[in-house]
Amino acid sequence: MALHDRISDPPTDFFTDNKSPDSVHIWNPQITSFIATQVAKHRPMVLVTSGGTIVPLEKNTVRFLDNFSAGTRGACSAEHFIRNGYAVIFLHRQFSLLPYSRHYSHSTHCFLDFMDLEDDGAGGLRTVILAQYEEEMRSVLKEYKRAKQENSLLVVSFITVTEYLFLLRDIAQCMAPLGSNALLYLAAAVSDFHLPPDKMSLHKIQSHGGRRLVLDLEPVPKFLRKLVEHWAPQAMIVSFKLETEERLLIPKCRAALKSYGHQLVIGNLLDRRKYEVILVQQDSERWIRVSDGELEDILVPEVIERHKRWAVKMKSSI
Amino acid sequence: MALHDRISDPPTDFFTDNKSPDSVHIWNPQITSFIATQVAKHRPMVLVTSGGTIVPLEKNTVRFLDNFSAGTRGACSAEHFIRNGYAVIFLHRQFSLLPYSRHYSHSTHCFLDFMDLEDDGAGGLRTVILAQYEEEMRSVLKEYKRAKQENSLLVVSFITVTEYLFLLRDIAQCMAPLGSNALLYLAAAVSDFHLPPDKMSLHKIQSHGGRRLVLDLEPVPKFLRKLVEHWAPQAMIVSFKLETEERLLIPKCRAALKSYGHQLVIGNLLDRRKYEVILVQQDSERWIRVSDGELEDILVPEVIERHKRWAVKMKSSI
Repeated sequence: MALHDRISDPPTDFFTDNKSPDSVHIWNPQITSFIATQVAKHRPMVLVTSGGTIVPLEKNTVRFLDNFSAGTRGACSAEHFIRNGYAVIFLHRQFSLLPYSRHYSHSTHCFLDFMDLEDDGAGGLRTVILAQYEEEMRSVLKEYKRAKQENSLLVVSFITVTEYLFLLRDIAQCMAPLGSNALLYLAAAVSDFHLPPDKMSLHKIQSHGGRRLVLDLEPVPKFLRKLVEHWAPQAMIVSFKLETEERLLIPKCRAALKSYGHQLVIGNLLDRRKYEVILVQQDSERWIRVSDGELEDILVPEVIERHKRWAVKMKSSI
Repeated sequence: MALHDRISDPPTDFFTDNKSPDSVHIWNPQITSFIATQVAKHRPMVLVTSGGTIVPLEKNTVRFLDNFSAGTRGACSAEHFIRNGYAVIFLHRQFSLLPYSRHYSHSTHCFLDFMDLEDDGAGGLRTVILAQYEEEMRSVLKEYKRAKQENSLLVVSFITVTEYLFLLRDIAQCMAPLGSNALLYLAAAVSDFHLPPDKMSLHKIQSHGGRRLVLDLEPVPKFLRKLVEHWAPQAMIVSFKLETEERLLIPKCRAALKSYGHQLVIGNLLDRRKYEVILVQQDSERWIRVSDGELEDILVPEVIERHKRWAVKMKSSI
C-alpha cells in the first residue's frame, strides 16, 4: 500500500469559508500535551468521536438541525478501549453521554435515588450510597479513578458540526506522528447538511402570520477522504454508518469504503443498533450480535485486533 | 372577566392530522392520580414545561430540528415552586435537566468527582462523598427526598413537538377542574415550525452526489389561544418569550399577550437570560435582574404572588 506523506492541508471551501472556532485554539495545548504523554508511554491511542453534531440556523442560535445520538456507543466504547490499554481522546457533543458517568446519566433512575441520608453519629446526617447500589457504584468509580490516575482519557467537547470538523482535523493532525499506532473511531453522528455562515440569519428567525420556513441546506464536505489522504494517512480509520433500511446497510458501508479508501466501516440499523453491528472491510463482512450485555464488549476487542494487524502491516511496508 | 365554560376541544388540523402519541395514554393515569392527590391536600398546582421540542424530519428519526434549551429555567423553577408549597407536574424534554439532579448533570464537573473510595474497615473499599461536597449534596438530597415523600413532583417526559402539544392538552384538561388554583408556567422552547406526517420521509433521507436538502416547514399551530379558551380557561397562564434582539423583546411580549389573552409573559434575551427577565402583563412591566445566585429565587415568588392575586380575582368574579 502506498503511503502518503503528511502534506499540508489543501485549501477547501469548508475550512476557508468557515472561521476556525475558538474551541480549536483553546483545546489545542491540552490535546498536544496529552498526546506527548502517551507517546512517551508507548501506548496505542484512539480518538473516539461521539454524539450528534448541530447545524445552527441562526448565528445567535435558537434553532438548529441535529442528528439523533445520545452518545452511548462512543461513551461505552471509550471505556472498553481504556480497559484494553488504549489512551482515549473522547471528542463528544456537549451534554452527550460520557464514559463512566454514563452509567448514571440519561437514566430512568435519577442518581440521587442511589443515595440516602443516615445518622452521622454526631447528631447530624451524612450522605451515603445505598447498600444495594454500592458494588456497582464502586466498580464504576474505581475504573474512573484509574483512568484519571493513569491519564488515559482526555475529554474534549464540541457543539456544532463546524466545531466538530475543525477539532477533528486538529486532533487527527496532532495524532499523525503516532503513525499506525493511532486509531480513529468515528462514532459521532455527523450531519450531512449544513447552512453556510453567509446564509445564516444573525438573529432568531421570526415566525409570524402562519408563514412557512423554507431551509435550503448545503452538503457537508466529505471529510473522510481528507482524513485518509492528508490529516492522518497512516492511522487506521473506522467510520460508522447508521441506516434505517436493512437493504441499504451493506451497500452503503461498501460505498463508503470505496469512496474514502479507509479500513473499516461499522454498519448498524437504528432500531437494532444495541444488539447488532456489521464490520465491513474490503475483503470481509462480519456480524456481531448480542442478546444481552454490552455489544461494545465484543466490538471493541475486534476493532483492536484489526488495528494491531493494520499496524503490523503498515510497519512492515515501510 | 368573562369565564369560558370548559367545552370540548374543537376539531383542529393539528390534533386531527397528527395521531395522538402513545405517551399520552401511558402518562394519563399517573397524571390523573397525581392531580387527585393534590386536590385532596388543597395544594396549589403548577405545570412547568421545560426543554426544547424536536421536529423529526423522518419517521424513523435520524435527523431533526430542535430548539436550544438545556432546561435550566424549568428545572430550577420547579424546585422553587415546590419550596413554596406547590405541587409540580414537570413536563420536560427527555434528557433535559431535572429538578435536584440538575445540580450534578450537564456540569463541567463529573459527579463522580464528588466521590471517593475509602477503607471500609473490613479489608474492602466503600464509596463516600468527599467532605468538601458533603454539605451541598446533603442539602440537595434532603429536598429531593422531601419532594418524593410529600409526593409534590410528577416528572413527565416528551421528545417531539407533537408529543409536547398532546401532553400539554391532556395535562391542562386534567388540571382544569382545579380552576384558578392551577398555574401553567410554559418554559419549554416550543418549535414554531414542524413537518406534518404526510411530508415526512419514512426512512433516513439519503445524501448523495453533493445534493442539497430543501426543507419546507409548516407553522406549528398557536396552542396558547386554545389553552386560554378551551383547555384550562380559569388557570393562570404564564408563557416565555426568548429573543436575541433587545428591540424586539417587549413588543413581542406585548403581541403575545394581545394575541392569546393570557396573564403573563416572561421575556428574556438569549445572552442575558440567566441574569435578567422582564415580566409583562396587560398593565405593567417589571424587570428582574440578579448579579449572582439564581434568578428563579426572585422570579418564582413574584409569579406566585401574581397567581395568588389571579386566584382571588377569579374567585370573587364567580
